Amino acid sequence: MNAYYTDEVHGKHEYYDLGGFPLRSGYTLPEAGIAYKTHGTLNAAKDNAVLFPHMYSGTSASMEIFIGEGRPLDPSKYFIILPGQFGGGFSSSPSNTPAPYDRGQFPPLAIADDVIAQHRLVTEHFGISTLHAVLGWSMGAQQTYEWAVRFPEMVPRGAVFAGNGRTPVHNQVFIDLHTELLTSDPEFKDGFYSDSADLRLALKRHAVAFSLMGFSAAFYRDELWRSLGFVSSNDFRQGFLRGYFAPMDPNNLLAQASKWRAGDISDHTGGDVAAALGRITAQFFVASFSEDLFFPPEDHDADCAHIPNGHRRPIETPMGHFGMFCLREEDQAAVDAVIAEMLDA
Amino acid sequence: MNAYYTDEVHGKHEYYDLGGFPLRSGYTLPEAGIAYKTHGTLNAAKDNAVLFPHMYSGTSASMEIFIGEGRPLDPSKYFIILPGQFGGGFSSSPSNTPAPYDRGQFPPLAIADDVIAQHRLVTEHFGISTLHAVLGWSMGAQQTYEWAVRFPEMVPRGAVFAGNGRTPVHNQVFIDLHTELLTSDPEFKDGFYSDSADLRLALKRHAVAFSLMGFSAAFYRDELWRSLGFVSSNDFRQGFLRGYFAPMDPNNLLAQASKWRAGDISDHTGGDVAAALGRITAQFFVASFSEDLFFPPEDHDADCAHIPNGHRRPIETPMGHFGMFCLREEDQAAVDAVIAEMLDA
Repeated sequence: MNAYYTDEVHGKHEYYDLGGFPLRSGYTLPEAGIAYKTHGTLNAAKDNAVLFPHMYSGTSASMEIFIGEGRPLDPSKYFIILPGQFGGGFSSSPSNTPAPYDRGQFPPLAIADDVIAQHRLVTEHFGISTLHAVLGWSMGAQQTYEWAVRFPEMVPRGAVFAGNGRTPVHNQVFIDLHTELLTSDPEFKDGFYSDSADLRLALKRHAVAFSLMGFSAAFYRDELWRSLGFVSSNDFRQGFLRGYFAPMDPNNLLAQASKWRAGDISDHTGGDVAAALGRITAQFFVASFSEDLFFPPEDHDADCAHIPNGHRRPIETPMGHFGMFCLREEDQAAVDAVIAEMLDA
Repeated sequence: MNAYYTDEVHGKHEYYDLGGFPLRSGYTLPEAGIAYKTHGTLNAAKDNAVLFPHMYSGTSASMEIFIGEGRPLDPSKYFIILPGQFGGGFSSSPSNTPAPYDRGQFPPLAIADDVIAQHRLVTEHFGISTLHAVLGWSMGAQQTYEWAVRFPEMVPRGAVFAGNGRTPVHNQVFIDLHTELLTSDPEFKDGFYSDSADLRLALKRHAVAFSLMGFSAAFYRDELWRSLGFVSSNDFRQGFLRGYFAPMDPNNLLAQASKWRAGDISDHTGGDVAAALGRITAQFFVASFSEDLFFPPEDHDADCAHIPNGHRRPIETPMGHFGMFCLREEDQAAVDAVIAEMLDA
């Protein structure tokens, strides 16, 4: 058990038992479970729930920076559900599943698996028939797309930040690189290591890849790491990115990344992305970050053009994909504005 | 001896003996040599020489695609010298230097080492006192900058394509990633492998990094690999990029990349890039490729602003950094136009 994926680090989680859970890949995950956190109270009409899945490498707690009294995601108004994704370390993951589905033999996942598990949590456990909204960033955006296409009647409002209906090919090349970096550590042993703390080399290499692609040329050119309290770019890379990824489990990261890479809403429509996006009935807000090297603004333009009630909301920031971390006040204001507009749509 | 770095593959090279060559790093490379190719004839006045150093992973032969009768670089008019850079496999390199300076113990290099060696070739061997022009792409651009700042009286005209006076920090992060990929192969053995053909894993991983950063999101989005005769992006990545890098020597690539990473014209001026660029007296043309993830257009704007006779020539292409490969006719026309304008300036 990796000490990082615990309530001590990420706050108290709840768990919903999914039983034997059939995955899109054809495997059945025995005794599967979905972890989640909630904020606020489900009202009697059960119509104030907002679902906010998290991004790659994150946990339910990662999304809590967007929640607060007086903020758009106000827990005095909404019942905010923060589901943990499969592979995220709290829901069923390589790091917490018993043999013979553990570690290097955890079955392949799909974005749809997460959404189907979340749907069961929302409907079976909470008895909710319509969500007020679904939103997410990056892999959370991929899950939001999957929700809006798979269960359009349940999603009257949605917002995606820096994510696409189908993962761009250039982005897939990054995932391939990322996979090389995590698996190249001699301690990786096809995923059958006993302690993720031994995977220092894998996690160090992986952090270099995110130093490159997670931020932008402008971020380094303008020395924006200074605003985070670092004294050099190396200091930032070591203190922020290596520090962030160091306690994580490489098998978990790989399980998430393979879903990210394969994300494709057109699985619903025989490969026709436009047709899949055309199924979205929600008032749907499509936000991107300029300089995003993972999910460039151009790909958001293309997605939004096919969504009947799509509203394009590009956000200008030199922070690249990690604009969503809201390390700049302007970024938080811009993100909150899109969330507020969407919640009231 | 790696069979790739031979005249059979790259055409006939000449060699100029540099003797014991003092490197900027404080080492002396014994029996150093600079390889080169030439096209055309040096005229009696010795004033028609154009120096065209090559990019990372290239050889003198790589620049021959820009030379031809009727092209701006016309060998019936100019004496075109194509020097091989240290570490390039023909000039002194990890792959061709005897112990104790071979392979993993080849000394650290600097862009200035190349330029000083080229200067000796040009002055001592050819007896040239002023070049007609110097130009280069990427690491060739870095060498062009070094020429224009170190020997301004010898460089009346210059052109850089996709390269900067100081390597951008984001670009340095890429080199770090690239280094992790090349050195992570268990066969690497700190560079003391006996046959570079055993470094398949290193070269495969390295090719993934160039698949990501050498081209652009737009290149993959618009499936521009189709114009190169490939039937899928994977086909392109395997056939083009893995194929291109597969025969190379990882120690040679690392030796080049460390120069690339450290490229900084402000070594001449105590860290003041503007002051260094201000020393350039040449009519100097600064070309960039849009979507270039290594050397973005913005960094060229900044460089050009400090060059007294700087002429900014941005080139629009979805090919990213590899726009210089001129895989599209429009790119060749745009590159040739800048070369022609510079040669006549």
